Amino acid sequence: MRATTIHAPGDVRFSEVPDPSIETPTDAIVKVTAGCICGSDLWPYRGEGRIEAGATIGHECVGLVQEVGSEVRSFRPGDFVVVPFCHCDNTCAHCRAGVQSACVNLGGTASGQAEYVRVTQAEGSLVTTDGVPDAALLPSLLALSDVMATGWHAAVTAGVRPGSTAVVVGDGAVGLCGVLAAAQLGAARVVAMSRHEPRQAIAKRFGATDVVAERGAEGEEAVAEITGGVGADAVLECVGTDAAMRTAFAVARPGATVGFVGVPHGVELPVRRMFARNVGLAGGMAPVRRYLPDLLERVLSGAIEPGLVFDLTLPLEEVAEGYRAMDERRAIKVMLQP
Amino acid sequence: MRATTIHAPGDVRFSEVPDPSIETPTDAIVKVTAGCICGSDLWPYRGEGRIEAGATIGHECVGLVQEVGSEVRSFRPGDFVVVPFCHCDNTCAHCRAGVQSACVNLGGTASGQAEYVRVTQAEGSLVTTDGVPDAALLPSLLALSDVMATGWHAAVTAGVRPGSTAVVVGDGAVGLCGVLAAAQLGAARVVAMSRHEPRQAIAKRFGATDVVAERGAEGEEAVAEITGGVGADAVLECVGTDAAMRTAFAVARPGATVGFVGVPHGVELPVRRMFARNVGLAGGMAPVRRYLPDLLERVLSGAIEPGLVFDLTLPLEEVAEGYRAMDERRAIKVMLQP
Repeated sequence: MRATTIHAPGDVRFSEVPDPSIETPTDAIVKVTAGCICGSDLWPYRGEGRIEAGATIGHECVGLVQEVGSEVRSFRPGDFVVVPFCHCDNTCAHCRAGVQSACVNLGGTASGQAEYVRVTQAEGSLVTTDGVPDAALLPSLLALSDVMATGWHAAVTAGVRPGSTAVVVGDGAVGLCGVLAAAQLGAARVVAMSRHEPRQAIAKRFGATDVVAERGAEGEEAVAEITGGVGADAVLECVGTDAAMRTAFAVARPGATVGFVGVPHGVELPVRRMFARNVGLAGGMAPVRRYLPDLLERVLSGAIEPGLVFDLTLPLEEVAEGYRAMDERRAIKVMLQP
Repeated sequence: MRATTIHAPGDVRFSEVPDPSIETPTDAIVKVTAGCICGSDLWPYRGEGRIEAGATIGHECVGLVQEVGSEVRSFRPGDFVVVPFCHCDNTCAHCRAGVQSACVNLGGTASGQAEYVRVTQAEGSLVTTDGVPDAALLPSLLALSDVMATGWHAAVTAGVRPGSTAVVVGDGAVGLCGVLAAAQLGAARVVAMSRHEPRQAIAKRFGATDVVAERGAEGEEAVAEITGGVGADAVLECVGTDAAMRTAFAVARPGATVGFVGVPHGVELPVRRMFARNVGLAGGMAPVRRYLPDLLERVLSGAIEPGLVFDLTLPLEEVAEGYRAMDERRAIKVMLQP
């Protein structure tokens, strides 16, 4: 099949690689209908982290079941499925506790930007729709494989409650989905920290009541003003850098929780400030499968349209241009179609 | 009056200092009936942190109200009161949210190991008993001014729930109170990590179902065995060192929260592990006043006897020996009586 491979920083290619195949009875092979590029894919693309030259990249996709292993009973060829980026059995102690991203049989999508993908633990991981959904729903269903569920996880772990004030640090696709999640969970005020106008527009459409364009100390002052000097009840950290984390802790009120979902890079947690102010940290890699049934229903009912984060769609073979567009911030998030 | 003063590492004295007096209408002066030495007093005593030579030290006490400012209406001279180490108005936004330790009018006990103490924000801070309590209750009431409330905060912020498994890292007085708190909050298993036999004995009396004497990797393995390989539902970090924090995160199950109350010294939080395992951190300086009404009732009804953490009582003028005894681990916690 043809798949996206990474060879060095800045060097992704659309290459011929071996077809994935059923390796264990719990596997399924899914023919990708749509995949996309994640902010976390940009870390190796920008030279952060180790690259295994020639490895496939991409972990978000939806598609049609092509083949299933003998232990996969709930899915059959032709089913349209959302593929969560982390694969889980959904039966172990960690899954039952709602932390499917720490499943004892954890696997992961290794070729979401490709023609086919192997899903380990297909029975526990996949969710399907009733029939093949309308093409208009595709972006929003694709968003459920990672970005929307990740933004949701930020809001849940930050403890967003009805009537509360939530601040979202980061206006990437995850941050925008965090805004949507906070609004859906009933926050009365949702403050989006964003300086890019197209992102601000999506944030508002997703339910942001306030936009703070300033950064650093000025941004913190702006949030203080919005919250009457008290600070935010819940903070969603959706970037993963030290600067973003510091902002998150600076705008949190005492007793609040920062929900973090950005893969941490160079983050040093301000433990003494956390102690003095009783500001907690929760979150991590999103247990996508936990949220999928609920989120799928919200998408199908039209309650949420997370697919709006895709502002560029390219044919899969133009994936390299997709990476460039995201790296240069010409696009928020790129959808790819074989 | 006579008070404990610190002059250099290892050098505490019982000295003559100016009497405290009413400085603002919200103040009260309390004649100390009993004070004690906190694990956190040992940090400067051991040369960690800045010492202002000649400053009073000690922040835990109970006593009799001596004098009140004009705005203090609920207390009058002669009332027996528990003095929380952090003074709060109990009316500001942070207090109303249960984070009295971040009160906008935060003050603190500056001379708990002394004859008298000035309490700022007396109206919001103090709690009183009906009449002067029996001497037998004194140690347990004294424990409410900090150590018991701090252990309780660890258990609350770690999210201890009925039927859960809690692990307590640290067998100092706070850790022992954390064991008591976890048991009171309904944990089905309470694992005390302790290698000192007298402390193990108190931990068991406080409700520990298991004792792990091993440290480091061996201790982690022991907890893994107790929890069937899953890890603890809630972890109470009651030390404040990097080693203790690492142990806390290592024994927590995915999705669990570490509740930390030990003043952090040299702690570097394992942010990538927290991310990968979805283990959160909550807690900080205990909002003692929040818990006082409940804890007072538990002490007066005999439900808890946190005063058992005091294994040495000295006359106040022998405070230097008290510090030595705690520093050399000859005593768990020292009560001082003028």
